[in-house]
Amino acid sequence: MYRLLYPMRTYLIVTGRDDEVNVMAADWVTVLSFKPEIVGVAVSPKRYTHGLIKKYGEYVISVPSVQMLRDVWIAGTESGPEKLRKMNITLTPSKTIKTPSISEALANIECKVIDYRDYGDHTLFVGRVTGYTYNPEAFKNGEPVPSAGFLAHIARNKFITFKDEILTI
Amino acid sequence: MYRLLYPMRTYLIVTGRDDEVNVMAADWVTVLSFKPEIVGVAVSPKRYTHGLIKKYGEYVISVPSVQMLRDVWIAGTESGPEKLRKMNITLTPSKTIKTPSISEALANIECKVIDYRDYGDHTLFVGRVTGYTYNPEAFKNGEPVPSAGFLAHIARNKFITFKDEILTI
Repeated sequence: MYRLLYPMRTYLIVTGRDDEVNVMAADWVTVLSFKPEIVGVAVSPKRYTHGLIKKYGEYVISVPSVQMLRDVWIAGTESGPEKLRKMNITLTPSKTIKTPSISEALANIECKVIDYRDYGDHTLFVGRVTGYTYNPEAFKNGEPVPSAGFLAHIARNKFITFKDEILTI
Repeated sequence: MYRLLYPMRTYLIVTGRDDEVNVMAADWVTVLSFKPEIVGVAVSPKRYTHGLIKKYGEYVISVPSVQMLRDVWIAGTESGPEKLRKMNITLTPSKTIKTPSISEALANIECKVIDYRDYGDHTLFVGRVTGYTYNPEAFKNGEPVPSAGFLAHIARNKFITFKDEILTI
């Protein structure tokens, strides 16, 4: 039961360029390698995003905040680039790839696809991290600040964020 | 910067069997497919766990609670099966594989390896979910209960859990 791994963090995947930019919500994101930095995202072939990643070989993993919950919901439930007109996000040029980043996001991780593999009903897109930007209020000394409002997904339309209290051992 | 994806959920990976059981902490875990249910975990070849997964072709993803933070810390910082003697966990038979589950965990997901790929300094072990168990206080109606104390990792010895408040849209 995959839901036993939940709550999982929710991210936004930005793909395409120019007038063909799309934004999808995705929970199935992970780090795959520390050095070099490699990350992966699993995307259904039914998603518009899937075709755009295959076409351009790059994507941005954007980190939404609780303030962007409505945008995450639209990105996760509607299909195709038209949904961008309903969202309150500002696209901004990325540093190392042509796929744009999202200004309001807590961070944007720019990735070039180095491999992809079909597993069951999804494709894992494996990306080398080529650049990044972040909000210095959300990440200090290279560590996330709990109160920044990082989003996690419980199920359907239910989301959650973290307590302020840091547990140390 | 992989840390921009943090906080990430922390899990325990159980491997081996009989007197060669090992438990490792891992943040780099994700779902890869909904139908069939496939999950993945990235493990460094330096870890004892890596050899055990290759040897037996199966693993359990265990979901620790905040009450298990000390065990998570030992599992993440010490190497080899000897650390189990320092941990306060109870191994219990799994339903579908010979690798045991952890009684105290909020859930245990039993996986058989169907593929593995080296990416950078880690290996992604792709597992078909063959069985699972869970604590009914932590998962109700197939959804995680926020107050169950799911653990997430910030950095080094800093962990965090979720707020009780569910955000709906």
